[in-house]
Amino acid sequence: MDAAPLAHGGDLGAARLLFPGAREPFVDLSTGINPHAYPIPRLEPEAFRRLPEPAAVRRLSAVAAKAYGAPSAAHVVAAPGTQILLPYVAGLVPSGRAAVLAPTYSEHVRVARLVGHVTTEVADVGQLHDADLAIVVNPNNPDGRLFGKDALLAVTKDLRARGGLLMVDEAFMDVGAAGASLGDEVACGNIVVLRSFGKFFGLAGLRLGFALAAPEIAARLNASLGPWAVSGPAIAIGEAALADLAWAEAMRASLGREAGRLDEILTEAGLDVVGGTSLFRLVRTPAASELFHHLGRAGILLRRFAEQPTWLRFGLPADEDAWIRLRTALAAFPP
Amino acid sequence: MDAAPLAHGGDLGAARLLFPGAREPFVDLSTGINPHAYPIPRLEPEAFRRLPEPAAVRRLSAVAAKAYGAPSAAHVVAAPGTQILLPYVAGLVPSGRAAVLAPTYSEHVRVARLVGHVTTEVADVGQLHDADLAIVVNPNNPDGRLFGKDALLAVTKDLRARGGLLMVDEAFMDVGAAGASLGDEVACGNIVVLRSFGKFFGLAGLRLGFALAAPEIAARLNASLGPWAVSGPAIAIGEAALADLAWAEAMRASLGREAGRLDEILTEAGLDVVGGTSLFRLVRTPAASELFHHLGRAGILLRRFAEQPTWLRFGLPADEDAWIRLRTALAAFPP
Repeated sequence: MDAAPLAHGGDLGAARLLFPGAREPFVDLSTGINPHAYPIPRLEPEAFRRLPEPAAVRRLSAVAAKAYGAPSAAHVVAAPGTQILLPYVAGLVPSGRAAVLAPTYSEHVRVARLVGHVTTEVADVGQLHDADLAIVVNPNNPDGRLFGKDALLAVTKDLRARGGLLMVDEAFMDVGAAGASLGDEVACGNIVVLRSFGKFFGLAGLRLGFALAAPEIAARLNASLGPWAVSGPAIAIGEAALADLAWAEAMRASLGREAGRLDEILTEAGLDVVGGTSLFRLVRTPAASELFHHLGRAGILLRRFAEQPTWLRFGLPADEDAWIRLRTALAAFPP
Repeated sequence: MDAAPLAHGGDLGAARLLFPGAREPFVDLSTGINPHAYPIPRLEPEAFRRLPEPAAVRRLSAVAAKAYGAPSAAHVVAAPGTQILLPYVAGLVPSGRAAVLAPTYSEHVRVARLVGHVTTEVADVGQLHDADLAIVVNPNNPDGRLFGKDALLAVTKDLRARGGLLMVDEAFMDVGAAGASLGDEVACGNIVVLRSFGKFFGLAGLRLGFALAAPEIAARLNASLGPWAVSGPAIAIGEAALADLAWAEAMRASLGREAGRLDEILTEAGLDVVGGTSLFRLVRTPAASELFHHLGRAGILLRRFAEQPTWLRFGLPADEDAWIRLRTALAAFPP
């Protein structure tokens, strides 16, 4: 089984071991990260040198609250990526039953178990109502399913009656349907929304993410993270990028066009696109393993799924050369 | 009480509120961060854009193991600063009795309580033997006390017999006595050593720190942090800096000379230097509060301690102008 070293996307080191001699540079389509990164502003040396100041984190939180529709900066927790928040969020409720709407990002099940929850994967929102911790990725990764606000709020209401919590991972909500985020609903007290910065802004290496939650929950999460959770560069870049609503709007439109182009190429190659978002497309094919290896040998890395052997996820090519390489390699399949 | 907004060093925003109209730029002596930062190498855009790859983290861990004297990369956990590790390390033992060698960095008591330990502060190493979690900062902050390896290993042995753990925060060990680190002793299984990157290398805003521990403990900590805990820039800069042993050696010598110069200036001003390391000096004076405010009004920020009202900690001035401003302001005290 060679899936283990590629449990997550973006691991070109492992890809090179799996496909020695593949064409370089690798075209990495294995993530859902925007290949058109937000332009990095000039960083002051102080951003690297000094401890991040509380006032700077408050400014970042205020900008994030506005960008993500949270009621105020007090409803925002800034973190070095959302991944590192998962154990703290999952630990907000005493060990009990966690239900994860699946199939989805595998870390949610792993972390819910790690912190002591008896964790089950469920297929639809209706099965979340009797959990102590309900976890939904919205829109879902990798199939792009979008869960309605009303249905999620109904879950929240039932959970609240029993001290339960809904965690909504909105990692890809920047390209989700307008108005679908639960960021403006967190004041009710038992919803935690996670927002990734690095995916939509194409800066995954920076490590920046947010939890949106009621102020008392946000305070608990901040107490666990401690002071200085977010780096100086992440604060500076995050503040600039999240305030740049014009960039975001133009990027959303542009990513939508590129996702359409990707669908055309995939369909032209005889593949069924069964879901996704503007940052990735999901293909289902019985030839998934062969196609993964065919493209891998051509230096194009996809995301495959150990539990879903007929699925392949395609991220967006970064430039015209990458688009041509993908189209050419697909045209030569099956070999 | 105006201490609250300055609970930690480095908060110039709070200093400006406390000392409106103070001379600018502020001379920040309130931290123990090296004012002579490691030169930041050119960073590839990919460091910001791509998810950090597992192989890159392994390389960083290997360099850190060598720099810190840990047995191997498997004994190293890379994190976005050591602060964020504290709850995970304190949570390695079931809730019980935590003993913190005090007075010291206040976050250890706060976090040990946060994760559920009944936490007491003790005055010497001999009082750590019956704890479930013993916490020592070595050399200690702010008094610079250095605790002997034999005494700490004796604590470890007693704790091990009862499933207890010793956490040694070696945040300032880069300027500690040679051979005093417990980094080469972590294989025994119940020692976790924390090493800060940002203090000695003057890059606190980068957020990088390490835990050194037995591989099974390191794996537990890594499981909590999840993939991608450390940013791309932190990996790139950390790898370069930790491998640069010549820079470290020269910097240690240079910081030692500057600490000596600081002692001269403080002594000349009639102050008692009662401890410290090469990155900060501790003064005890009944006029601590007056001196803090006198220097604050002159745009020089010190670190004071709510629990120790006669203490003031002085970091190293960054440049000749800052040295002169400190000497001049001290000469005008008492006003």
